[in-house]
Amino acid sequence: MTTFTIIGTGSMANAIGGVLASGGSTVDYIAKDQVGTAPLAGDVVILAVPFPAVDSILAAYGDAFDGKVVVDITNPLNFETFDSLVVPAGSSAAAEIQAKLPQAQVLKAFNTNFAATLAAKSVGELLTTVLVAGDSAEAKATLVAAVEAAGLGAIDAGALVRAHELEAIGFAQLTLAVSEKIGWTGGFAVQR
Amino acid sequence: MTTFTIIGTGSMANAIGGVLASGGSTVDYIAKDQVGTAPLAGDVVILAVPFPAVDSILAAYGDAFDGKVVVDITNPLNFETFDSLVVPAGSSAAAEIQAKLPQAQVLKAFNTNFAATLAAKSVGELLTTVLVAGDSAEAKATLVAAVEAAGLGAIDAGALVRAHELEAIGFAQLTLAVSEKIGWTGGFAVQR
Repeated sequence: MTTFTIIGTGSMANAIGGVLASGGSTVDYIAKDQVGTAPLAGDVVILAVPFPAVDSILAAYGDAFDGKVVVDITNPLNFETFDSLVVPAGSSAAAEIQAKLPQAQVLKAFNTNFAATLAAKSVGELLTTVLVAGDSAEAKATLVAAVEAAGLGAIDAGALVRAHELEAIGFAQLTLAVSEKIGWTGGFAVQR
Repeated sequence: MTTFTIIGTGSMANAIGGVLASGGSTVDYIAKDQVGTAPLAGDVVILAVPFPAVDSILAAYGDAFDGKVVVDITNPLNFETFDSLVVPAGSSAAAEIQAKLPQAQVLKAFNTNFAATLAAKSVGELLTTVLVAGDSAEAKATLVAAVEAAGLGAIDAGALVRAHELEAIGFAQLTLAVSEKIGWTGGFAVQR
């Protein structure tokens, strides 16, 4: 059984925590005002916060991330324009976080899922599927197993470099939802 | 009723042509050995060829593209490595084609759909949905209407700059299919 620490208490944090708990994982949460004081108890730490909040979390915990699997769920949009990302072209938030945490194994996951479809475990008639990218096969297998244990789908989408494409998917999906082309209870689904 | 000329006779060309014809559009095809001699009869020209074949088609027709709506369906992968795209980071094949055809209205479309799900009109239990990006609202509306007339979904996914994200979606989907994480009869679907 995998232990997870989720940093964040918003809708995505709760949806992800609910999924993992329903699959039998142990989940604890760290709220904004506990960052830096509450311990990173889990083997896997999920950064379920907006991208601009990540840096202060990394600074607050420093080498406490060493040896952890760290899951980045962010979509690093420019939320003023909704027309670009705030990471360099071709790169990704996940790659930037990995560069700042060289002793951790960073995974990109959950950024292509909306909270409602994680909670519902379905996107329309299709099973909600979590796409996971990262350079550690072992770390990916751990997360995939924890998600599948909850009855959702999970797919190893490749190395961490593929986080660029996962963030592009998340970006496109957000622009469609904000422009009301799709609902927040819908979005992209995956058929195997 | 919209008239379409499809350049290409492969599986995607046939699937797209089949969809449009089933919606009542007039469709003609230009095969590889007819490029440059067969006229661009349609109001909308679909480049249903691999990305490396595009340049010679643009050269063969020159200003015959002026005033046309041109639909780019390509996924400009490096097919040797399957690990990157051959267009500059942050750009897209569609943007490159638009730059070469300043008197045409370029749309990105169909690159996030597999041929089988266009033909079947469904991805699992969900309606097959075509994502369309481009700078001309009129051109997008024309293509969306022609696709919807066939009973498929079609969504205006934003300006041509969003072709970067659509090509990232296509890239990710292709890597999943090639690595057998998804089937060629499945892939990404959209729930409104």
